[in-house]
Amino acid sequence: MEGCGEDGQVKLLGVAYSPFVVRVRIALALKGIHYELIEENIQNKSELLLQSNPVHKKIPVLIHNGKSVCESMIIVQYIEEKWEKKAPNVVPKDPYDQSIARFWVAFIDDKFIPSILGVFKGEGEEKQKAVEESVANLVLLEEALSGKGYFGGDEIGLVDVALGGLLATVQTIERVTDSVIIDTQKLPLLSTWVHKFCKAEGVKEVLPDPAKLFEFLSEIRAKFTSPPTGN
Amino acid sequence: MEGCGEDGQVKLLGVAYSPFVVRVRIALALKGIHYELIEENIQNKSELLLQSNPVHKKIPVLIHNGKSVCESMIIVQYIEEKWEKKAPNVVPKDPYDQSIARFWVAFIDDKFIPSILGVFKGEGEEKQKAVEESVANLVLLEEALSGKGYFGGDEIGLVDVALGGLLATVQTIERVTDSVIIDTQKLPLLSTWVHKFCKAEGVKEVLPDPAKLFEFLSEIRAKFTSPPTGN
Repeated sequence: MEGCGEDGQVKLLGVAYSPFVVRVRIALALKGIHYELIEENIQNKSELLLQSNPVHKKIPVLIHNGKSVCESMIIVQYIEEKWEKKAPNVVPKDPYDQSIARFWVAFIDDKFIPSILGVFKGEGEEKQKAVEESVANLVLLEEALSGKGYFGGDEIGLVDVALGGLLATVQTIERVTDSVIIDTQKLPLLSTWVHKFCKAEGVKEVLPDPAKLFEFLSEIRAKFTSPPTGN
Repeated sequence: MEGCGEDGQVKLLGVAYSPFVVRVRIALALKGIHYELIEENIQNKSELLLQSNPVHKKIPVLIHNGKSVCESMIIVQYIEEKWEKKAPNVVPKDPYDQSIARFWVAFIDDKFIPSILGVFKGEGEEKQKAVEESVANLVLLEEALSGKGYFGGDEIGLVDVALGGLLATVQTIERVTDSVIIDTQKLPLLSTWVHKFCKAEGVKEVLPDPAKLFEFLSEIRAKFTSPPTGN
C-alpha cells in the first residue's frame, strides 16, 4: 500500500482533546506506530466514522489496513496484541495480573468516569457529592498503586493508559468547576504518578493543549449549569 | 494441596441462578475444570466474599489457589488465559477477531443488559419501549451472527458465553413480564442459536432450573411493580 510503513496503514478517527482518543494515541506512541489522525467534527460526523462504527457512531475508531476497531480500551488491547513484539507490553503476560489490570480498567470506566462527569455537570451540593465520590474512587486506585511506580509496575501498563488518558480532562474539570479531585494530601502516590506519567515519553507528546481543553470544557459546562444572575 | 486436582484449588462464590455466575460456570464446564461452587446469601454476604471482592462486594468471584478474580467476563478471560491449552479456546487468537468479540461483549453488558432490565422493571408503555429496545439490540447481534453457527464461529466463543449466560434469565423475564424478546420472526438466526447453545455440552449442565428462576424473578418483579388493585 502506498504511504504505509511496516506497520501497515493506520488511521485514527478522533478529536485531539477527547480523553478516549488520548488513550489510543498514548498506546500508539508508546509502541512507536505511525498513524494518521483524522479529525472528526462531532456535530457533523463523517461518512467514514458512521460506516466504521455503525453501532455507536463514536470516536475513537482505529482503522488498520481497512479494518475498524472501536472503543478506546478495546483499541488499546488490539494495539498490544497486533504489535506484541514492540515494547512496551501494556497488557501483562500473567493471567492473574491481566485480570487485575482489566478489573481496574472496568472500575475506571464504570465508576470513576461517571463520578467525574458528576463533578463536571453538577452544581452546589450535588457537585460536592460527586467530588467526594471521585476522590473516594481515586483512593481505591491509590491503594492499587501501592509499592509501584506505575500501575503496570516499572513500565506504563493498561491501567496507566486507561486513567492517564483521562488526566488532562480531569485536571481541566478541576479548573473549570473549581474543585480538587487529585488531592495531594489524600492521594500522595497518585499525585506522584501524575507528574511521572505526564512527563513520560509517548505521553507528553499527545496530551491535549490545556488552554484549548479549558476553553472547550468551559463552553460545554456552561450548557449544563444555570445562567449567571445579575448583569 | 489437599482435595485439589491438577487445575489447582478452584472455588466459585456465587448463586446458581445469577446470569453472571452462569457465564463463569459455562466457561469452567467447557474447559472441564473441577471447582467448588460456594453458594452465597446475597442478603447476608459471607466474610469470604467481602474479603475477596472488597471494591464491589459482588458475585461471581473465582478463587484460584487463594487468588481472587472478580467480574464475570474478566473471570471468563482469566479461565481462557490460565487454561489456554485446554480446548475450546473461547478467546480468538487473531487480534482483530479478539477486538470484535470484545466489542460485542461490551455491547451486551452496556446496551443489552440495561434494555432487558428495563423490560423486567417496567410496566405499560415503559415496558413496551424497553421490549423494542431489547429486540433492536438483539437485531444487531443477529447481524453479527450472520454466516456462523456460534458467534465464535464453529465453536462457542466469548460472545456466546456472554450472551448465553444471560439466556435463562432473558427467557424467564419473557415469561414473568409476558413479553417476547427473542422473536423468532425478527431473530431467526438467534433463535436457532438459542436451541443449539442450550443443548451444547458444558452449557446444558449448568443452566439454572427454570421453575426456580421463574419463582425467584417473579418475587423480585413484584417489588418493582404496583400492587394489584381489587381484593
